[in-house]
Amino acid sequence: MKREHIEQINAAVEAVKAKKKINHFYFVACGGSMALMMPAQYVMDCECEIPATVYTANEFIHRMPKALGKDSVVISCSMQGKTPETVEATRLAREKGALTISMSHNVGSPLWETTQYPIHYDWLEETDMSNHNHTILHSLVFNILNTIQPNEKYERACKSIEKMDAIFKANIEKYASKALEFGENYKREEIIYTMASGGSYGPAYSFAICLLMEMQWVNSNCIHSGEYFHGPFEITDYDVPFIIVKGIDQTRYLDERAHKFCEKFSDKITLIDAADFDMKDMDEDLKGYFASLVVGVVLRGYADALADFRGHPLTVRRYMWRMEY
Amino acid sequence: MKREHIEQINAAVEAVKAKKKINHFYFVACGGSMALMMPAQYVMDCECEIPATVYTANEFIHRMPKALGKDSVVISCSMQGKTPETVEATRLAREKGALTISMSHNVGSPLWETTQYPIHYDWLEETDMSNHNHTILHSLVFNILNTIQPNEKYERACKSIEKMDAIFKANIEKYASKALEFGENYKREEIIYTMASGGSYGPAYSFAICLLMEMQWVNSNCIHSGEYFHGPFEITDYDVPFIIVKGIDQTRYLDERAHKFCEKFSDKITLIDAADFDMKDMDEDLKGYFASLVVGVVLRGYADALADFRGHPLTVRRYMWRMEY
Repeated sequence: MKREHIEQINAAVEAVKAKKKINHFYFVACGGSMALMMPAQYVMDCECEIPATVYTANEFIHRMPKALGKDSVVISCSMQGKTPETVEATRLAREKGALTISMSHNVGSPLWETTQYPIHYDWLEETDMSNHNHTILHSLVFNILNTIQPNEKYERACKSIEKMDAIFKANIEKYASKALEFGENYKREEIIYTMASGGSYGPAYSFAICLLMEMQWVNSNCIHSGEYFHGPFEITDYDVPFIIVKGIDQTRYLDERAHKFCEKFSDKITLIDAADFDMKDMDEDLKGYFASLVVGVVLRGYADALADFRGHPLTVRRYMWRMEY
Repeated sequence: MKREHIEQINAAVEAVKAKKKINHFYFVACGGSMALMMPAQYVMDCECEIPATVYTANEFIHRMPKALGKDSVVISCSMQGKTPETVEATRLAREKGALTISMSHNVGSPLWETTQYPIHYDWLEETDMSNHNHTILHSLVFNILNTIQPNEKYERACKSIEKMDAIFKANIEKYASKALEFGENYKREEIIYTMASGGSYGPAYSFAICLLMEMQWVNSNCIHSGEYFHGPFEITDYDVPFIIVKGIDQTRYLDERAHKFCEKFSDKITLIDAADFDMKDMDEDLKGYFASLVVGVVLRGYADALADFRGHPLTVRRYMWRMEY
């Protein structure tokens, strides 16, 4: 990690440490940035005695949870730092006395100027991926955990961020041919479901709404593996495509159960099993938390391949950036 | 409301009152019962200084939020009271010292026997709809609010439950011909999106996963009106059907914005605008909270009509109840 990132994270963590009481952690963002928050919120949920929730920014603004106040910590994120809802949510949270920490690729952006503790992240450059949004956020979360309830596990987690660049790159390579196969086999599909749970729900949601719906105009829905059996599974048929993610965190059983059922009735299953990831020398008790970040990076390769075979670049939009809305 | 319901709710509320400290309200269920929790959690979020979250039961079990403990209140629900995940989630929560309150149509069911405070509700009988699950839950929530932070508004809300039977029935009738029109016009569609926010997200989610996917085998996804602009809106086209719910609670602006955009590009919009509901003499400041329950009841009529025109009864399943899973 870069020195600037470490310093920005440290400043935010010191501010968390200085709070006498914390009633809640709010993770607030939109779309892909909100999805990014989900693995982080999962870590907090599993490890922290203070509850945490994820809100899409405009729901947060208008719902305005009454519990939000001076005892709250709000963590927000926007790539360019210009998403109006995320900026406004951060401004409102700060006005209500909450501690605000925000991540943005764009230094000096509206979000950067609105928040108390801005944190920069790199993006898409061919550089060290441990400086990207997901890893920076994991670093922030494990540093916060280590501050409010010190534990050698969290110290190891903070240090493990450095291992992620090699892990991401190894798995991008490992899944390159499978991604191409996916792109070729699924290029004609009009709908592709995704399914996941736990820390991997976020990347699977992001793939469904950003990569498939937004960037490929392919219908989708990210089904929670636990919810699958309470309605959505009736849609399963031999010709209905599912991308199923099996995580290696605490909810793996849910994914395994959904996969086991789904493969009996659908001939079009693409399985991303985090147990097959090359996690290098990542500590056993931390693998689950970091594997969910790898899910997102691997899935990105599947989207690239699909876009290529469909002749529909991921950069093409019909509404976004092209009109007011 | 029936006397047994009032007594069961009172017993649960007394137990909440007796707690010295509450750190969190957990709403836990699966599928349609989980969706039912969402308008209730929305009320809590807007009105209560104690945060509240909704979990699908198996995620709750395996994630096992570390904040769950003796200071927590867990509210769970299962129609027949036999959903294994919901029963197990309730058992685990009780084991961890949380106060457990559970709703079930089935007195003496496993859920009934597992929880500390069971509450019965009526279902589908042609009787007083204020004894159904959604209204019983609203009664519970407003009674809890009135106990932990007494307010005449909550007292009025508790009394307003009695008005709901007439309101539900008036709107079922009001929307009967529109429901038929929907059924006829959309019977050939292979995918129908739903869209909502705030307290109405729950009923729209339930319609997508239970009515469309489970009971009609029609592809769907409940898009959050706020998330729509951060990915999903790119799927919008002249021939893509959306059921858009405009609530009359605090997040109405989100629905209006999504509707305004969507109607420019899709010729297949079905609008359910809660501002058009006949809310009888419901107090102005409570209408929003109760209108989201009406959304679910009105949508049910749309599903009945769709099923009729498709010749596919809502009771037909290919997997549920027909095999082990």
